[in-house]
Amino acid sequence: MTMSTALLTDHYELTMLQAALRSGAAHRRAVFEVFARHLPGGRRYGVVAGTGRVLDELERFRFGDEELTFLREHRVVDEATLAFLADYRFAGNICGYQEGDLYFPASPILVVEGTFAEAVLLETLILSILNHDCAIASAASRMTNAAGERPLIEMGSRRTHEDAAVAAARAAYIAGFASTSNLMAGHRYGIPTAGTAAHAFTLLHDSERAAFEAQIASFGAATTLLVDTYDVAEAVRTAVELAGPALGAVRIDSGDLAAAAQEVRRQLDALGATGTRILVTSDLDEYAIAALAAAPVDGYGVGTSLVTGSGVPTAALVYKLVARETASGELEAVAKRSVGKPSRGGRKEAYRLLDDSGHVETELITTGGLVPEGGVPLLHDLVRDGKVIGRESLAEARERHRSAVATLPLEALHLGRGYAAIPTEFA
Amino acid sequence: MTMSTALLTDHYELTMLQAALRSGAAHRRAVFEVFARHLPGGRRYGVVAGTGRVLDELERFRFGDEELTFLREHRVVDEATLAFLADYRFAGNICGYQEGDLYFPASPILVVEGTFAEAVLLETLILSILNHDCAIASAASRMTNAAGERPLIEMGSRRTHEDAAVAAARAAYIAGFASTSNLMAGHRYGIPTAGTAAHAFTLLHDSERAAFEAQIASFGAATTLLVDTYDVAEAVRTAVELAGPALGAVRIDSGDLAAAAQEVRRQLDALGATGTRILVTSDLDEYAIAALAAAPVDGYGVGTSLVTGSGVPTAALVYKLVARETASGELEAVAKRSVGKPSRGGRKEAYRLLDDSGHVETELITTGGLVPEGGVPLLHDLVRDGKVIGRESLAEARERHRSAVATLPLEALHLGRGYAAIPTEFA
Repeated sequence: MTMSTALLTDHYELTMLQAALRSGAAHRRAVFEVFARHLPGGRRYGVVAGTGRVLDELERFRFGDEELTFLREHRVVDEATLAFLADYRFAGNICGYQEGDLYFPASPILVVEGTFAEAVLLETLILSILNHDCAIASAASRMTNAAGERPLIEMGSRRTHEDAAVAAARAAYIAGFASTSNLMAGHRYGIPTAGTAAHAFTLLHDSERAAFEAQIASFGAATTLLVDTYDVAEAVRTAVELAGPALGAVRIDSGDLAAAAQEVRRQLDALGATGTRILVTSDLDEYAIAALAAAPVDGYGVGTSLVTGSGVPTAALVYKLVARETASGELEAVAKRSVGKPSRGGRKEAYRLLDDSGHVETELITTGGLVPEGGVPLLHDLVRDGKVIGRESLAEARERHRSAVATLPLEALHLGRGYAAIPTEFA
Repeated sequence: MTMSTALLTDHYELTMLQAALRSGAAHRRAVFEVFARHLPGGRRYGVVAGTGRVLDELERFRFGDEELTFLREHRVVDEATLAFLADYRFAGNICGYQEGDLYFPASPILVVEGTFAEAVLLETLILSILNHDCAIASAASRMTNAAGERPLIEMGSRRTHEDAAVAAARAAYIAGFASTSNLMAGHRYGIPTAGTAAHAFTLLHDSERAAFEAQIASFGAATTLLVDTYDVAEAVRTAVELAGPALGAVRIDSGDLAAAAQEVRRQLDALGATGTRILVTSDLDEYAIAALAAAPVDGYGVGTSLVTGSGVPTAALVYKLVARETASGELEAVAKRSVGKPSRGGRKEAYRLLDDSGHVETELITTGGLVPEGGVPLLHDLVRDGKVIGRESLAEARERHRSAVATLPLEALHLGRGYAAIPTEFA
């Protein structure tokens, strides 16, 4: 099995390459832009995530013997194209919005410049990464807003493709989740991991008491005990009896979580376990989290709704040719005219305009080098002449996201469906 | 970077292992079962997919130096547990429904038997694979039903995580899709790949005519030309002028597809291109495909809705301990009593009962060795004593799916929301 990312690509990228190599147009300079025509699901803002993964996978986008043999044997492209692919290294420039930043309709979140040949090949991989990761981060941000200061654990790995799970944990962490259940995300990205026990652990033992004893013997009283396998009140009583008031936390994974949390809090306090935290899980999404704001809950575990983007599993980002070199060597804006799919041609810059209080007012997209006074430039160099120069840590992206959300008007945090929080304007 | 799948696992599987090793319960025999409590989205049936991927990834589920070092450095588990993991090989048995087969609520689509220690570790990976692949295959099956004899191309790679895309193409193929745009799916699984050109290819050239000429020069008249970059009627005229009546196909990717297809068919026929096929793409799902049944369409390309499960991106499958060895050495049925999350304990067998005309009537789940007369056994051996014995080709799974759908009552193919097509009964 290969570690090359080159075949994570749609067949037609290669057939376009072949035809363009033959017509000569393949070597024309081209600008492709990643943007969303709208924010699906009535969301108020999008969250950029995945850019760092794009940079990682770009460096592994190589057609080696294994890939070339497949393409030859299946007659995907001709020998001239295979020769081009064998030498392929992206040698152009990429700039983009930084991870954790916000985006709005038409925000050019990634701009890829190179020859048509080198830039068109990256379409599928770039869109796969950004459509997935931005969708997850955008949902995650709503959840962290709803949770306020309470920590969120990402635990949706089992509800999505095994590798998507790792990327989802990363996107959630950028958008403010505290930790993940996914060990690979801990290994690959250094995200804190968390977890203690499932119902199976209790069922395995001859009694709930025996299971709790085993867990406490191994992990100490500070562990989190799962209390809803049989009867919650009895489990809480047993838990505090065995662990003492130093019991770290209890987890409730079923039923009316608000009512159960109230009940368990009263019981814990009555038993003297006033410092024992209450964690809740069970099909939580941003709405359920918000509904628990007044309940005595100390942390949330979110699974399905996080990894499926809470109703919006893909971000509707497209990768469009916006400019290309003409036969006479000039860079010319281009855009298709397909019904109902608006595109704006031209190489763009993007700025965010803030009001005096520091709140965002406008997403301004410019062409032709216009620089608005006081506008915060949103495009940053990521790849220069094929060399990755825009790497940063997840901690930076996470901090950027926290700061960016603080610039949103308050109504942008409303969970209901609506329009983008600020207008996108073109100058 | 590792190719081991061992860290595609939730943290708590390992902490449960540690505590159970310490209590001694880790070595008890255990039976875990994968099933869905319901079919989300009001679906009438589910489609099994991903089992073959489970077998592949099971063989790579090994804790090597890299994985153990991570677990040690991050103090996920203690040294005794690390020593257990270093030697870990699943040595138990797995049986399951075969790929392409149908499933209904409570169908035990995978049954994992071993010690608790060896079986609990596989929970996350098995659920990730099956929840994703079954969701995609279940959506894909509705689309192939809606398309009838017309071929479907899977082209959703750009709308989902880059590795999920490969699995999605595989699941769609099992459920009857004819081909995929994803080259890795062609390489890894031998699925036919397809694709010709995007709008960018037309925009790259100085005119649509120049683009069409380039494509025909490279791929011949039998290629598929994309005709909606500017004006469809003009593009069709140019296409037939350049390729002649032997033009393979035209693709329409925007607008009212039914009306556009009618128009283009008339135009093609008038131009003598009566054999030129019409392919349509653009946010198609099973409903849109069904609505195009009367339109002169020769094939469909499906992207977003396929890879996102058409509203149901995850299959709601769970992995539950249903039996475990007691202290006295007997295998005992177990089930949690959590509110609103029904589970049935006990090691099960499953049979499908058909009526005289060969249509399915009942999904019968039995315990205790009861074998119903004439029932078709649904569980097949996949892994025996840790050795994979249940591999089969995608062609077999695809054929099984075709046959299985033919046994469904007609109303099960209705696209509206409803209940499972047949009842699940327990004996």
